Amino acid sequence: MSDTASSTGLVRELVDRHQATLDKAIEANFERGYWSPYPEVPKAYGEDAAAVGGAAFEGYLGERFPLEQAGTADWAGEEISPYRGALGITYPVPDPDQLLGAMSAALPAWRDAGVEVRGAVLLEILARLNARSTEIAEAVAHTTGQGPAMAFQAGGPHAQDRALEAVAWAVAEMRRVPAEALWVKPQGKRPALSLSKRFTIAPRGIALVIGCNTFPTWNGYPGLFASLVCGNPVLVKPSSRAILPLAITVSVAREVLAESGFSPDLVALAVGRPGERIAADLALRPEVRLIDYTGSSEFGEWLEREARQAVTFTEKAGVNIVIVDSSDEYEAMLANLAFTLSLYSGQMCTTTQNLLVPRDGIETDQGHKSFAEFGADLAAAIDGLLGDDARATAILGAISSPSIAERLDAAAGLGEVVLASRKIDHPEFPQADVRTPTLIAVDGPEDPAAHEEQFGPIALLVPTDSTAASIDAFRRSVHEHGAITAGVYSTDEEVLVATEAAALDAGVALSCNLTQGVFVNQSAAYSDFHGTALNPAGNASLADAAFVAPRFGVVQSRRHADPEAG
Amino acid sequence: MSDTASSTGLVRELVDRHQATLDKAIEANFERGYWSPYPEVPKAYGEDAAAVGGAAFEGYLGERFPLEQAGTADWAGEEISPYRGALGITYPVPDPDQLLGAMSAALPAWRDAGVEVRGAVLLEILARLNARSTEIAEAVAHTTGQGPAMAFQAGGPHAQDRALEAVAWAVAEMRRVPAEALWVKPQGKRPALSLSKRFTIAPRGIALVIGCNTFPTWNGYPGLFASLVCGNPVLVKPSSRAILPLAITVSVAREVLAESGFSPDLVALAVGRPGERIAADLALRPEVRLIDYTGSSEFGEWLEREARQAVTFTEKAGVNIVIVDSSDEYEAMLANLAFTLSLYSGQMCTTTQNLLVPRDGIETDQGHKSFAEFGADLAAAIDGLLGDDARATAILGAISSPSIAERLDAAAGLGEVVLASRKIDHPEFPQADVRTPTLIAVDGPEDPAAHEEQFGPIALLVPTDSTAASIDAFRRSVHEHGAITAGVYSTDEEVLVATEAAALDAGVALSCNLTQGVFVNQSAAYSDFHGTALNPAGNASLADAAFVAPRFGVVQSRRHADPEAG
Repeated sequence: MSDTASSTGLVRELVDRHQATLDKAIEANFERGYWSPYPEVPKAYGEDAAAVGGAAFEGYLGERFPLEQAGTADWAGEEISPYRGALGITYPVPDPDQLLGAMSAALPAWRDAGVEVRGAVLLEILARLNARSTEIAEAVAHTTGQGPAMAFQAGGPHAQDRALEAVAWAVAEMRRVPAEALWVKPQGKRPALSLSKRFTIAPRGIALVIGCNTFPTWNGYPGLFASLVCGNPVLVKPSSRAILPLAITVSVAREVLAESGFSPDLVALAVGRPGERIAADLALRPEVRLIDYTGSSEFGEWLEREARQAVTFTEKAGVNIVIVDSSDEYEAMLANLAFTLSLYSGQMCTTTQNLLVPRDGIETDQGHKSFAEFGADLAAAIDGLLGDDARATAILGAISSPSIAERLDAAAGLGEVVLASRKIDHPEFPQADVRTPTLIAVDGPEDPAAHEEQFGPIALLVPTDSTAASIDAFRRSVHEHGAITAGVYSTDEEVLVATEAAALDAGVALSCNLTQGVFVNQSAAYSDFHGTALNPAGNASLADAAFVAPRFGVVQSRRHADPEAG
Repeated sequence: MSDTASSTGLVRELVDRHQATLDKAIEANFERGYWSPYPEVPKAYGEDAAAVGGAAFEGYLGERFPLEQAGTADWAGEEISPYRGALGITYPVPDPDQLLGAMSAALPAWRDAGVEVRGAVLLEILARLNARSTEIAEAVAHTTGQGPAMAFQAGGPHAQDRALEAVAWAVAEMRRVPAEALWVKPQGKRPALSLSKRFTIAPRGIALVIGCNTFPTWNGYPGLFASLVCGNPVLVKPSSRAILPLAITVSVAREVLAESGFSPDLVALAVGRPGERIAADLALRPEVRLIDYTGSSEFGEWLEREARQAVTFTEKAGVNIVIVDSSDEYEAMLANLAFTLSLYSGQMCTTTQNLLVPRDGIETDQGHKSFAEFGADLAAAIDGLLGDDARATAILGAISSPSIAERLDAAAGLGEVVLASRKIDHPEFPQADVRTPTLIAVDGPEDPAAHEEQFGPIALLVPTDSTAASIDAFRRSVHEHGAITAGVYSTDEEVLVATEAAALDAGVALSCNLTQGVFVNQSAAYSDFHGTALNPAGNASLADAAFVAPRFGVVQSRRHADPEAG
């Protein structure tokens, strides 16, 4: 803990420094146009940023990660970089009683600091994370297999944006509750009744963030920062495959908290020993009152069912769909779809899986295209996009886990292979498992393969009886299996409107006729809601009021008011 | 369904008529002073209002309640007035497939009407309910056993306030999401990317309101109106003992909906055949995506655990506590406590149960009072308050259900009887079971009786080692058993501050030194949060952002923007 007087001064300075950015973020959330305080181009970070980030990453390898947490019982870690093998970094394995005890003890001072101070401290954490974006990018790339551009943008500034977005929503909600009110109720001829009331934002308890393998920061930050700004200490349990990006995050958060005079144990990391699955145990701890989770539906549903002492925010599996009806920019449509399917080898929760196409084909600016021609043309577009190995590896990244490689190997059994996946030799990292997407034509919307998530670079061409049938199948599929994204291509406004209506009924965000430099699998903070919380792919949306409001309550105290005050 | 053109005109008129009230309610929520558009004094409703309300009530007796709902399979009802025996009214027993089907079919038009129209229609429903407050008061009194003043105020205007409060919170949240946005992202030297985005508020699905026996409207309205204004059709399943107040409510809502051109099946009533418990079956229906529940912890926890397709808002049992440390207005404190314990025979979720008093006694403006003296003085205050039978019955109302009478009969076994409950002959309704509160001294904070809810007119005098011990016991009890209300009496600011700190830690609203015409069991809409959602007495607060935000999502559609628009 720092000296109180100087830390109070620092905290005041942080509020001054970050107030305008926080207010602008709140405004951005409610306007939903483009905005960001975190540049997404690496060159904005200085000429030597890449080298500094790379060196910082190298410095972690084979060492204990520097985290001095309460209640550390052991050190463990078994991350394997998809690009270069075992990282050899170990992290704190907590004694839960001790660590959760220290976190609980840290809560009151953080709660009592109030909304504005907590917001400012969090924006300082984000500013320092932003400054270390190249380091985080290395950590993200070497745990998830993302290509360098995505690891930088999605792992760094875009994740920071999603965090700030959540902080801004939460602060806006908390600011709505006045600190004090005078309640004066007329009583006819008798004196009015008057009460002075004080309202205090109260956190719910300890928050647990269960990170995912593929986007540890982008998916982990919203819950982490939303819980923390509402006054809840946060325990971060990363995926055992992607610890480092969140360990750096926790370390930066602890550093800023300590400098500001708060206990660093307000944010802590929890890693299990090899083979130990500690997420479920932690999720059932009575101290844990909030859980944010991104991952399989199976464990997500287990959490929703069993961790009843906590409010649980989940993002689970889904089946993302694009309806193809017609196009007057056929080449641009194919190029857009090819990039969508290729980006990070389809290992995004937003990647399109099922392409619903009338079996009689589609009309385009290049004439009628049969179902088979469309498949062949899309295959060719993917081949064209990924023809150069260096460019291909930059887009594809590497397969992040053996289970995805196995699923891809088995995908040919799902239907007729229209485009086979091929392996690409990574020019820099020979051991990286780099694969291009496969396109499989299945029987139709009722084909079992179309009814479950095929996570990874596997896209299904699904013939339908008509676009109307596509829209029906889309509505039903989202309702039953969930989806994070959906798209439609049509030159017919009526088809667009009908698809919008189906998307509204089923509760999924829709992108119409994307042919330029925006892709269905991209979601921009402050503007695009990521997930709707309305379909089985998750009960949370990044970020909306429902994502933040359950993270705090209001505790009031009332007394008779001074007569003069009335 | 009404004629569309005229109903559109009516809807426009409703928006004009109610806009200012809605905006004022939103402002009131965020200022939290005193405000209400619904007068709480009966005389404001006209000289013949009581007679009109009474006649309307009499008109229902022994008849089918006039509700023409979709899918009515049967008629049932077995309400017994605590004052005058069986009401003989029957209500629709639904075929769930048909009724839920009709409700689902009604959803899109209601959703598409938008926030402002839905808000205006709901304020019209509330205005008509307000005009029928005397009728609702009769219905509440004759189902719950409340005395006439409470039945009017809590059943009528105060319940309407709580509904409007929830509507205002929800509208404020929904208004934050713009209908459209233009997103323009600079691309350096290349042309900016621009997307036009539309955002639509989407309801979650059908909402189920499970009503309670004692405050059918006050506890039922917030969820009903919050869900409905967010676009969700609402199925109301009242307690089998208190159907009529909610049947009138449903009927008024359907009338206004139909006049406004919407399907009346957006709001429907569900009653089971005698002995049939349909709440659990309805709660598990896949169409049901929201549940509001007030009642026993057992069924509340069952709902939270089993109804996983729904977001569930609960108010369950708790143990409300008042800490007595000292007083410089001893008589006024005793009078306030006596009224608190007597009001509606303690059958309020907000009634104090455990009075924590140092076993060495307390200091007062009338000198030191031993623990026994305090008990005797409080008993005398209760006797004094209830000395006149007519006044007593007005305050006490009647025991609402045989299980409460049985609990009261057995209460002497909990400890030393300081004040025995006595039966009072009701001057107007001889069959009413009217009982005064009992005061029981138990062994201490660890006495098992102090660790569970003793719902009804049973208060426990709990000796503690000191006020510090009282505060510790209070903190632990709220954390373990929950509470909706808490109070403290002390002349020592340090004790008040320490109790406030404990209340904040445990998450319960606190009232300090109430000695005037406000009581710990009263909670004012727009100002007092009823429940905190932070302790085991419930996961919802009436009303805050968390109570409304999960009732809707946002579905977006994005397209490349017209170049000119950029």
